[in-house]
Amino acid sequence: MSERIWTAALVVIGDEILSGRTQDKNVAQIAAWLNVQGIRLAEVRVVADREEAIVEAVNTLRARNDYLFTTGGIGPTHDDITVDAIAAALGVGVEHHPKAVATLERYYETRGGVTEARLRMARVPAGADLIENRVSGAPGIRIDNIFIMAGVPHITAGMLDALTGTLEGGRPVVSKSIGGWVAESEVADTLRAAEKAHDGVAIGSYPFFREGRVGANFVVRSPDEALVDRCLADLTRALEEAGYAITAGGI
Amino acid sequence: MSERIWTAALVVIGDEILSGRTQDKNVAQIAAWLNVQGIRLAEVRVVADREEAIVEAVNTLRARNDYLFTTGGIGPTHDDITVDAIAAALGVGVEHHPKAVATLERYYETRGGVTEARLRMARVPAGADLIENRVSGAPGIRIDNIFIMAGVPHITAGMLDALTGTLEGGRPVVSKSIGGWVAESEVADTLRAAEKAHDGVAIGSYPFFREGRVGANFVVRSPDEALVDRCLADLTRALEEAGYAITAGGI
Repeated sequence: MSERIWTAALVVIGDEILSGRTQDKNVAQIAAWLNVQGIRLAEVRVVADREEAIVEAVNTLRARNDYLFTTGGIGPTHDDITVDAIAAALGVGVEHHPKAVATLERYYETRGGVTEARLRMARVPAGADLIENRVSGAPGIRIDNIFIMAGVPHITAGMLDALTGTLEGGRPVVSKSIGGWVAESEVADTLRAAEKAHDGVAIGSYPFFREGRVGANFVVRSPDEALVDRCLADLTRALEEAGYAITAGGI
Repeated sequence: MSERIWTAALVVIGDEILSGRTQDKNVAQIAAWLNVQGIRLAEVRVVADREEAIVEAVNTLRARNDYLFTTGGIGPTHDDITVDAIAAALGVGVEHHPKAVATLERYYETRGGVTEARLRMARVPAGADLIENRVSGAPGIRIDNIFIMAGVPHITAGMLDALTGTLEGGRPVVSKSIGGWVAESEVADTLRAAEKAHDGVAIGSYPFFREGRVGANFVVRSPDEALVDRCLADLTRALEEAGYAITAGGI
């Protein structure tokens, strides 16, 4: 079975992530959303608020993935340069999107009115479409295979919601876990054998230390749910035969 | 003043981050630690557990930064391929480090003894040194300008602690905040002018929605603390003259 794998990349734009000031939440949120759309998040880059850095990342990643998402840098202030950088990456100009202008005028009608700074949030690379923002005034932007999203996670969540079901993908990856009080180093051969015996699954091993004891969860992933179930059953049996108590769903 | 800026890059290795299963904490932790060492985190890539992906990221980033950190993929199981991938990137072989073997033998003496799988954690790219692991058995690894760290955040924290003060850097970046119930779109021009008037500072604007109101924190960064203080004082005055109540330290 060779089925097409759809992939996406993500460019997280922002000095606040690279300085350690802000804990990124968009990687995990977008990854989980993409899984449901049947699209695999293949790679992520975090870059500074610098045009060359954004252009390099965007041009490399959009060429080798089906979709490219960006987060951050679409607000009204001087450090919000994402739109200009992506226009530069694509070799197109920047224009005010009439529908975004109208949306911002409506949004700010009761909030002090539209200003030049606020109208910056209606700027898009020429030819772009908008992604609905159900939370605040400034919309997201789609151009070619690029999706330009907000940096604030709950605004991005709303934009993802607006995109749900609109992107072509494959079968979603099914991922199921088992776990136990197992030192992963004691079962490394068992894990390797189980992965090898079930072509098309990936098994991840995630150790932890908890209540003073060593344990691990093992995650089996594949778009083929029946295959995941067979692999999980075989792996559970092998671990139980080796003397471990295994909990479905992980511990 | 043109002072040397020391930079580092980080490669986060792991399907568990790209699948959304695990929320990364190492980017923020390593960024904050690097700041104190006077080193700027310039870029981050998150890559899958695939050798080509790791090799590409490592070779690109180690060439253009003073230091390269990696996290993840140094455990005992089949999905832990960081050491092999970095050896391949450097064009060197993989060997068992005698001191790491001795450490693991001691660590596992009361934990069931060393096995072949556990000895995998003593494998290093040929010529590498070890980074002390104060939390569990498997050490981190240093080779050339590359620092290979654990994926589990509290183990990485211990390794960073062991490295503190050993890396050459510049002056730490000083970063100070002010904040208020300000819509950032109303003060965009003021922020831009303040940054422009103080050569060498970067001002970040971080809006939030809280208690039903819009606010923002503004962060001024530079290695020159006196410059940060002057810029912050001028920006505070300008915002207060525009009628906002501003809180030092941010809100």
